[in-house]
Amino acid sequence: MDSDPRVRFGLKLIEIRKTRGWSQERLALESGLARSYLGGVERGQRNIALLNIFKLAEALAVEPEVLLEAPVTKQESSVVTS
Amino acid sequence: MDSDPRVRFGLKLIEIRKTRGWSQERLALESGLARSYLGGVERGQRNIALLNIFKLAEALAVEPEVLLEAPVTKQESSVVTS
Repeated sequence: MDSDPRVRFGLKLIEIRKTRGWSQERLALESGLARSYLGGVERGQRNIALLNIFKLAEALAVEPEVLLEAPVTKQESSVVTS
Repeated sequence: MDSDPRVRFGLKLIEIRKTRGWSQERLALESGLARSYLGGVERGQRNIALLNIFKLAEALAVEPEVLLEAPVTKQESSVVTS
């Protein structure tokens, strides 16, 4: 398990979003969440709660538990960009 | 997916806690979360955030994503008790 759950979640979210080929803006539109908030989540700065996790899962058409899985990219070596 | 993520999460948490044979009080002690807060989570009244989800997962010795899986018990027919 990565040391910070917020960083782990952010990396996983980026991973899934990019698999879709979506920009942050597209994900913001699809999920109804503010782009600035999403940016904070992806940078591991937000302690995102259940209802927003489920909104993201629905927008990305994945089961919510997928968002809590460990990212493929190692936290230590990754560069977080939008 | 159950209609309310908070209710779904609460049911799943109860399910895993009971698999361990733990009381709410035991889970509170192991996770460092207040028992009254845990009660609210299990009743589906709390929009629990990432850091607390990970605390519960660690206390219960499960991967965090397991807590976001759908409960075995159907939401409609379950009776939520401690």
